[in-house]
Amino acid sequence: MDIHTLTRELQLDNGSKIVMLVADGLGGLPMQPGGLTELETAKTPHLDALASLGVQGASIPVKPGIAPGSGPGHLALFGYDPLRYLIGRGALEATGIGFELQPQDVAIRCNFCTIDDQDRITDRRAGRISSQESAPLAISLRKIQIPGIEIFVEPVKEHRFVVVFRGEGLGGNVADTDPQMTGVKALEPVAQNPQSQKTAEVAKEFLRQAKSILAGHPKANFHTMRGFAAKPQLPSYQEVYGLRAAAIAVYPMYKGLARLVGMDIVGNAQSLEEQIDELAANWDRYDFFFLHFKYTDSTGEDGNFSEKVARIEELDSVLGRIQKLNPNVLIVTGDHSTPSYLKSHSWHPVPTLLVSDCCRPDPHSTFNETTCITGGLGHFEAQYLMTLALANAGRLGKFGA
Amino acid sequence: MDIHTLTRELQLDNGSKIVMLVADGLGGLPMQPGGLTELETAKTPHLDALASLGVQGASIPVKPGIAPGSGPGHLALFGYDPLRYLIGRGALEATGIGFELQPQDVAIRCNFCTIDDQDRITDRRAGRISSQESAPLAISLRKIQIPGIEIFVEPVKEHRFVVVFRGEGLGGNVADTDPQMTGVKALEPVAQNPQSQKTAEVAKEFLRQAKSILAGHPKANFHTMRGFAAKPQLPSYQEVYGLRAAAIAVYPMYKGLARLVGMDIVGNAQSLEEQIDELAANWDRYDFFFLHFKYTDSTGEDGNFSEKVARIEELDSVLGRIQKLNPNVLIVTGDHSTPSYLKSHSWHPVPTLLVSDCCRPDPHSTFNETTCITGGLGHFEAQYLMTLALANAGRLGKFGA
Repeated sequence: MDIHTLTRELQLDNGSKIVMLVADGLGGLPMQPGGLTELETAKTPHLDALASLGVQGASIPVKPGIAPGSGPGHLALFGYDPLRYLIGRGALEATGIGFELQPQDVAIRCNFCTIDDQDRITDRRAGRISSQESAPLAISLRKIQIPGIEIFVEPVKEHRFVVVFRGEGLGGNVADTDPQMTGVKALEPVAQNPQSQKTAEVAKEFLRQAKSILAGHPKANFHTMRGFAAKPQLPSYQEVYGLRAAAIAVYPMYKGLARLVGMDIVGNAQSLEEQIDELAANWDRYDFFFLHFKYTDSTGEDGNFSEKVARIEELDSVLGRIQKLNPNVLIVTGDHSTPSYLKSHSWHPVPTLLVSDCCRPDPHSTFNETTCITGGLGHFEAQYLMTLALANAGRLGKFGA
Repeated sequence: MDIHTLTRELQLDNGSKIVMLVADGLGGLPMQPGGLTELETAKTPHLDALASLGVQGASIPVKPGIAPGSGPGHLALFGYDPLRYLIGRGALEATGIGFELQPQDVAIRCNFCTIDDQDRITDRRAGRISSQESAPLAISLRKIQIPGIEIFVEPVKEHRFVVVFRGEGLGGNVADTDPQMTGVKALEPVAQNPQSQKTAEVAKEFLRQAKSILAGHPKANFHTMRGFAAKPQLPSYQEVYGLRAAAIAVYPMYKGLARLVGMDIVGNAQSLEEQIDELAANWDRYDFFFLHFKYTDSTGEDGNFSEKVARIEELDSVLGRIQKLNPNVLIVTGDHSTPSYLKSHSWHPVPTLLVSDCCRPDPHSTFNETTCITGGLGHFEAQYLMTLALANAGRLGKFGA
């Protein structure tokens, strides 16, 4: 039985407020044996005070050993089984640039490439063409017309751009045209099921016109298509939890992920302090607030240990302002770990802290990778964080009599 | 794969004895920040001594954040996935008053109600009629006759009573007749699947006769029917574990739940001391004993912290008598937490203690909500407690070669 079968049946509305502060990539590693992690190194007086009041645990993003991307990482935090609800690559790429996918859309990641006079690919990334050069080229493809289909072309970065087809009867299951090697032609778009036949035809026609538009460009004289994906079908927060939910994020990817589960995107904050301003300004209008802080991840990806420490301290400094709003449940967590040592997302459990008046506090008075493993929440899968949040908020009735 | 697929295949009979002492609603909360829980407050010298010998853990009744009723709470302790084996409301109500359901039965929760001269419900609970007044009314419905159907009518409390239809071809899937509002007529019983068509017809005829019997009563001149449910199909302890199992409980609900999994109901004890007498008297006849202690739950539901502490101390005081019987495995647990602070069942993990000669003791020498989170059993789903019990009893062979 899906956990949402339970939350649909048991949800209550008592007017309580939940704040989930996601420090992207929060968990870390020591840089050498015997060292401290970023979170252990940072001075975090507010988190320590919250740790004394709250209960902590080690959140497993997907399954032990699995490092998630932003998509599954956030879906799990939102309470959606990340192994059941898959976001296709094209849909995630479109989401990441702020494109609002509609139910009739199919999104595709495209790469500019170089082909020779016999159509054989000689460079799969068009010589790592610069964004400055590639963006106008992508925009030039907007003149492509296919009857009955609305077409969107959006530049992304360097050789990458996104195409979205909007129209009736477009399935999302078409094979990549990128042959993953040079010296051969790009593949034709081939439908993987009958419902995607029309999409394959539309893609073929798009490629035909694109080839003629791009002909003559020295590097980017063609493109491949990968990760065909329809908009993922996710039930909404309102439906599964009975929550009016707001997302307060700076980056388009996280706004997009929140929009996929029916959260409203609130404000246009450009900094953490502005995010807290938005939180306060919208306090009465919503039950649940998702706040996303990017820089604990990006500094980890850069391998910049001291800057990640500084960003954790920045995060700590705004907690007092959140507490002043008196949320019934305050959660601090991450969607995955991003240790500076690895310069990448990792599988390590994420320190997670939950504070409510009935959270059953554990004995910890600090909050980090070491304390969380003996916290009162134990080791738990991130997809259950939302049921814990709802329970602590008094928003779940009893299961069975 | 269901865990019972394994226990069916691996079960051994070595004559060992398992005692599972369930302190209903055992887990608690502090009443104020920094305070102690009920279990932490209680003086429990026997539990502490057992903690030194045993291994403890935090048992998650269903899933994180889900507070169970007695039905799913106990099914999980008995080793039955509480999200797979659902007990319908009517079946649980019948079980709770000690009615022994048969495979051909459909049980229904009924509420006396008041209707006006146009059959519109004016009070869904018949003015909260007293049990003294409602019980003879319920009994008066026993004169209803429907060919081919055996009918049982049992008073419960105030406006509530239970009806059981026994006969061939009675499915349990009929919609409630309670419209959940006043000012409208009660609904007709409508079958939700073809196998329940006959049940709906029988219910319609029952309601017709009941209306004529109740006509003229100033408050309870009609009744609604809710929670139609067939007897749940649960495999027996004998089959899935190879255990001759006995239940020693005071309250009908827990005897009923034990009966659903094929336990024998032993004795008629009215106190914990008498329950231990029964345990000793039946020691040679069974392999597994379920002892149920209600008062740790009812005091928690009353919000009576000090009385819950006293009841935990009462529980502690009988442990010496149980130990004298030398069970191979002794378990102390609860079906869920019932913190006095919340006055209700909760989702918090339940302190669980297991003692055997091969349990791999952890370092704890006390037993409570704080110690259990770092115990050797970790955080585990209650449905796995029975495999742990069987393993510690030497009653499970090796899985695979």
